[in-house]
Amino acid sequence: MQRYFVPASSWDTDRLCITGQDAHHISHVMRCKPGDEVICSHPDGKAAACKITEIKENEVILLVMQWLDRDAELPIAVTIAQGLPKADKMELILQKGTELGASAFIPFKAQRSVVKWDDKKMAKKMDRFAKIVKEASEQSHRNKIPKLHEQMNINQLILESKSYDICIFAYEEEAKVANFNSFSTIVKKMNKGQRMLVCIGPEGGFTTEEVQLLKKNGFFPVRLGPRILRTETAAMYVLAGISYQFEE
Amino acid sequence: MQRYFVPASSWDTDRLCITGQDAHHISHVMRCKPGDEVICSHPDGKAAACKITEIKENEVILLVMQWLDRDAELPIAVTIAQGLPKADKMELILQKGTELGASAFIPFKAQRSVVKWDDKKMAKKMDRFAKIVKEASEQSHRNKIPKLHEQMNINQLILESKSYDICIFAYEEEAKVANFNSFSTIVKKMNKGQRMLVCIGPEGGFTTEEVQLLKKNGFFPVRLGPRILRTETAAMYVLAGISYQFEE
Repeated sequence: MQRYFVPASSWDTDRLCITGQDAHHISHVMRCKPGDEVICSHPDGKAAACKITEIKENEVILLVMQWLDRDAELPIAVTIAQGLPKADKMELILQKGTELGASAFIPFKAQRSVVKWDDKKMAKKMDRFAKIVKEASEQSHRNKIPKLHEQMNINQLILESKSYDICIFAYEEEAKVANFNSFSTIVKKMNKGQRMLVCIGPEGGFTTEEVQLLKKNGFFPVRLGPRILRTETAAMYVLAGISYQFEE
Repeated sequence: MQRYFVPASSWDTDRLCITGQDAHHISHVMRCKPGDEVICSHPDGKAAACKITEIKENEVILLVMQWLDRDAELPIAVTIAQGLPKADKMELILQKGTELGASAFIPFKAQRSVVKWDDKKMAKKMDRFAKIVKEASEQSHRNKIPKLHEQMNINQLILESKSYDICIFAYEEEAKVANFNSFSTIVKKMNKGQRMLVCIGPEGGFTTEEVQLLKKNGFFPVRLGPRILRTETAAMYVLAGISYQFEE
C-alpha cells in the first residue's frame, strides 16, 4: 500500500486532509478513488491505514481505519555526518542511508572536501535532498523521515556531538594496525534508544588535524572491515551493521 | 600505494612483466619511473610490493620486493545472484558489492526483470562489468577480483546452488511475519571458509512461483531488517552484515 508522510497540521484526530504534491500524487499518479486505502504517517512516528472519503480539486480527505503498530525504525538513532563528497554522491548517501534507517544527516565541510556548496544554490539543494529522504522513507516503509541538518564545519560538528551517547569516525588507518578499534565492540555496548553520531570523511579522508581534533573531543576511530571503502559506502556499512546487530 | 591485478602468466617467480592497459596506466597515468613501487596481486590471492625496474613502450618490468600477508577477503565466500535490475543499477551493485567483499556475481534473469540483456551487446556489457569489479577490487585493496558469471535463469541458478554450503533469498514478505527467519541466526551458524549463495529479486521482487521453487530447493527466505530495501541495497546489507559478524 502506498505510504504518505502527512504534516501534523493536516491531522484532525481521525480525519486527514492531504494537500499539495501528495494530493496530486494520490489523485493523478496513483489514480485513487474514494474508498481506496493508503498508509499515512504522522510526524511523531505513528502510522495508520486510511480510507479516502473525498477527492477534491486540490485536496484529498481521508479517515483513519486502523492504527498500525509496526515499527520500522532502527533502535539506535544514528546520525550520519558526511564529509561533502563529489558529484551526486550525497544523493546516493541520503537515499541509501534513509532506506537503511538513518535518523539524521549532517553535511560536513571537511578540509579535503573538494566541492563547495554555493550559498545561493543551497535552498534548492536542500529542497532536492528533502525530497530524496521523503521518497526513500515512503518507499522503505519507515515511520519517520530522517532530519536534514544544514551543513556544518568541524567546530559546529563537535559542538553538536555533545548531545550524543557515542561518537565515532571512520578511519581507514585504523584498518592497518593489528590492535584496531572494533566497530562491533562499540555497537554491542549500546542500548536501544541511544544516539550515535558517525562522522565520515570525504574522498581524500580526514586530515591529521581533523583526526586529532575528533579524537580529542571523544570520537572513537573505527575501521569498517579490512577493505578500503569509498566515502559513499561507509554510511551503508555502519547502518547495515547496526541493523544486523539490533534488528536481525 | 597503487594496486594492480596481474594475470598469472605475467609472473615469473619474483619477476613480473605488466602489459596492456595496466602498463599504460603505470607509465602514462601514474607517471611512474624506474625505482617506484606498486602493489601487484596474483590471481591466487597473494600480493607483493614490487619495484619497477624498467619501463618500455608497451610493458613494465617489476621485481617483487616483499610479499604482503594482509588479507582483505571476507572469511565467507559470498556469491550474489542478482535479479536483473533496471538502468545502471547492476553497475552500482557490482562496484559496491566488490568493495564490501563479494566473491562472485551471477546476473539472474528473474520473471519480474523488466530489462532483457541483448545477446549481441552481451560481450561489451561483460567487458564493462569486468572493468568495474577490477577497479573496485584495486581501489578497496582486495586480494582477489570477484568472479563474474554469465547470466543464468532460475533453473541454472538452482543447479549452481548445489555446490554451496548455504543458500538464502531476500524475501520482503518475510519481514511482515512475527516469527521471521533471522538473517543473523543463519550467518552465525556458518564457519569461515564456507560458501553462501544470496539470491536477490529485481525491482518487483520474486513471483510466488519463484519463491516456491527456491524454497523447495533449499533456499532459506530471510528478511534484511524491517525496512523495505530497494533491490540494489539488499546485496550491500548482506555483505556488510557478514563483514560485521566475521571481521569486526
